[in-house]
Amino acid sequence: MAPGMTTSHLKPLRFDLLATDPTSHARRGTVMTRHGTFETPAFMPVGTQGSVKGILPDHLAATGSEIILGNTYHLMLRPGEKTVAELGDLHRFMAWPGPILTDSGGFQVFSLSDINRLTDDGVTFKSHIDGKMIHLTPERSIEVQNDLGADIIMVFDECPRADAPIECHREAVQRTLRWAAQCKAAHARPADQSLFGIVQGGTDLGLRTLCTEKMIELDFPGYAIGGLAVGEGFAAMVRVLEATAPLLPEEKPRYLMGVGFPRDIVASVAAGIDMFDCTMPTRNGRNAYVFTAGGALRLKNSRLQRDSGPIEEGCDCYACRTFTRGAIRHYFFASEMLGPVLASVHNIRFYQRLMEDIRRAIVSGTFAEFRQSDPRCKLGPAGEELASNEENSVKGLTQP
Amino acid sequence: MAPGMTTSHLKPLRFDLLATDPTSHARRGTVMTRHGTFETPAFMPVGTQGSVKGILPDHLAATGSEIILGNTYHLMLRPGEKTVAELGDLHRFMAWPGPILTDSGGFQVFSLSDINRLTDDGVTFKSHIDGKMIHLTPERSIEVQNDLGADIIMVFDECPRADAPIECHREAVQRTLRWAAQCKAAHARPADQSLFGIVQGGTDLGLRTLCTEKMIELDFPGYAIGGLAVGEGFAAMVRVLEATAPLLPEEKPRYLMGVGFPRDIVASVAAGIDMFDCTMPTRNGRNAYVFTAGGALRLKNSRLQRDSGPIEEGCDCYACRTFTRGAIRHYFFASEMLGPVLASVHNIRFYQRLMEDIRRAIVSGTFAEFRQSDPRCKLGPAGEELASNEENSVKGLTQP
Repeated sequence: MAPGMTTSHLKPLRFDLLATDPTSHARRGTVMTRHGTFETPAFMPVGTQGSVKGILPDHLAATGSEIILGNTYHLMLRPGEKTVAELGDLHRFMAWPGPILTDSGGFQVFSLSDINRLTDDGVTFKSHIDGKMIHLTPERSIEVQNDLGADIIMVFDECPRADAPIECHREAVQRTLRWAAQCKAAHARPADQSLFGIVQGGTDLGLRTLCTEKMIELDFPGYAIGGLAVGEGFAAMVRVLEATAPLLPEEKPRYLMGVGFPRDIVASVAAGIDMFDCTMPTRNGRNAYVFTAGGALRLKNSRLQRDSGPIEEGCDCYACRTFTRGAIRHYFFASEMLGPVLASVHNIRFYQRLMEDIRRAIVSGTFAEFRQSDPRCKLGPAGEELASNEENSVKGLTQP
Repeated sequence: MAPGMTTSHLKPLRFDLLATDPTSHARRGTVMTRHGTFETPAFMPVGTQGSVKGILPDHLAATGSEIILGNTYHLMLRPGEKTVAELGDLHRFMAWPGPILTDSGGFQVFSLSDINRLTDDGVTFKSHIDGKMIHLTPERSIEVQNDLGADIIMVFDECPRADAPIECHREAVQRTLRWAAQCKAAHARPADQSLFGIVQGGTDLGLRTLCTEKMIELDFPGYAIGGLAVGEGFAAMVRVLEATAPLLPEEKPRYLMGVGFPRDIVASVAAGIDMFDCTMPTRNGRNAYVFTAGGALRLKNSRLQRDSGPIEEGCDCYACRTFTRGAIRHYFFASEMLGPVLASVHNIRFYQRLMEDIRRAIVSGTFAEFRQSDPRCKLGPAGEELASNEENSVKGLTQP
């Protein structure tokens, strides 16, 4: 739909539940937005600074990606949300006509920036670009996201470290709840953009339950679970998800932020999650790490020098259909852009094929079998399988 | 045609002259190779290290490029010609199924490397990658090019500096002639690959004539003119071309190496040149300089920050059809790969549209008028028009 052609009598988001898995909480659905539909469970590639790094939109669409994520924190700093708005909106800016989700900036403020002051009002931090002091409040985050114009926008939340004391998590939950109400009140484009709430609470199931119930009272069109995959470990993450996701309204989409390895995604789908985003396929791709069903492959490995096979046998991505491992290895050593580009294209397609197979398995009632038998469902951090996700933030992967 | 499916009863190159311009020496033709046909006058984008930097083959083909160039010097150093051969050949390596031309390495050895010793035998130089001493001879250059498997390969020539004393140019001509005969004798795949001779001689018309006549006696299927656009200036270049090109056999393609600005190409077409290569569209693109009919545009210019127009109004390239100037400007400031990628795509398409219009004008008998009236025919280095090409090696362009 062209920008401006909003049909105000329709809701900006419609979630249809198409199938559920009898052996788990896994769900198969579709989400309609003003810029098109995406199938769930969905994986969203991350376009941090207004581009999914190195990938032109036609190649991104060819990976099967239907919705992408933009980072409010990065875009408000550069080029600035007013510039994006004046150039059309984030869809026009990125040349991505399909659905887009923007985060609130909260996670980046707490993880990337030099925080100067955190109060009930908001956060004051130093820009990682020029050191300028920036003040970000719930209202300001929504104002920026209204200007960017994504289909799904997020409340501004406080994201404590996983190992922060329980008192910090308790305060963060209270602040996140207050801020969520403020975000909802500040949201100026509810007919175009759907504002999702975010559940915090660390690994404390009581806090998670409390935050979930209060967040549901605020009545958002969708809910995210934040503050996971930040070092708590795989088992703890699954425990939180299994306790939290079922509390969320069945008729609304559920989004697990920033996750993760294939085995994390599969376990989260089983807990009832519908949407995912992660920088892993693109960041690992740029570092010459690629995903295959048999495990990770380091494309710089010397044994690939004269390997005329594709990155992954049987993969239908542009990289695998077109280039040999040997050529892609050379591109990395020669600092040619095509190395990171091709590895990223493959990794995103790897994730999207996984999502397609998950969706197919749920519909056909074979999800339990799929989880058991498909080797991709076990792909986690290097050196461990189905153990913990403590290395989610580094680029190590299970070796074949 | 798949690798290995050569049809040995056919020549590896066929040149058909389709039209000539009555007002100049301009020619319109087609060149058939084992990997397909390209229309002349033709512009070849440069894929130095086995990739046209940042551009996937489908996007490269969409610019209208029909033949591309690979650099023997770079490929022999990394990944090594044996690696390329084992992976198929250079076509398979680059995933470019169409025609490819490789240079001999001569120009790079003389311009990029730290030359240790030049004798009648060949050149010993330090690799610019690891400082290792490399010995390159005419026979070795051909051996490497035979392994790479391009459709058109070049003799190994000596390329003195433009301002070298006449005695140097005289020696270089004699050496280039001897080396050309050695290259022809060493060429092991004449049924698959066409070896072109190269005319040297600096700006001395007598030396150019001598070199041309002797090179023709060696009977190559095509001829290049080398040693131009290396600082001699536009007027001197045109003078050499006008004296040299008409001496070359009418029925064989003529290739001007490493040229150049649009006005250089148009003037060279008028002198009877059929093929061109230059890094300018891609190198300038990576540095945020783009070509438009009105002159050069610096995409980092602050006045483009909120410019919602395409790079060039009316251009049909992917960048212009898809992205705003404001977004591409942001990509450069944010160090996003898409900046260099999109600017390179536009610049190559700019060159290919120019070539298409040149070919159309020759066929329709309007080439003289086209040269007079089309503003692109005057695009040269910054700060001058139709004056000299001394700045060919820098990235300055005529400003609009």
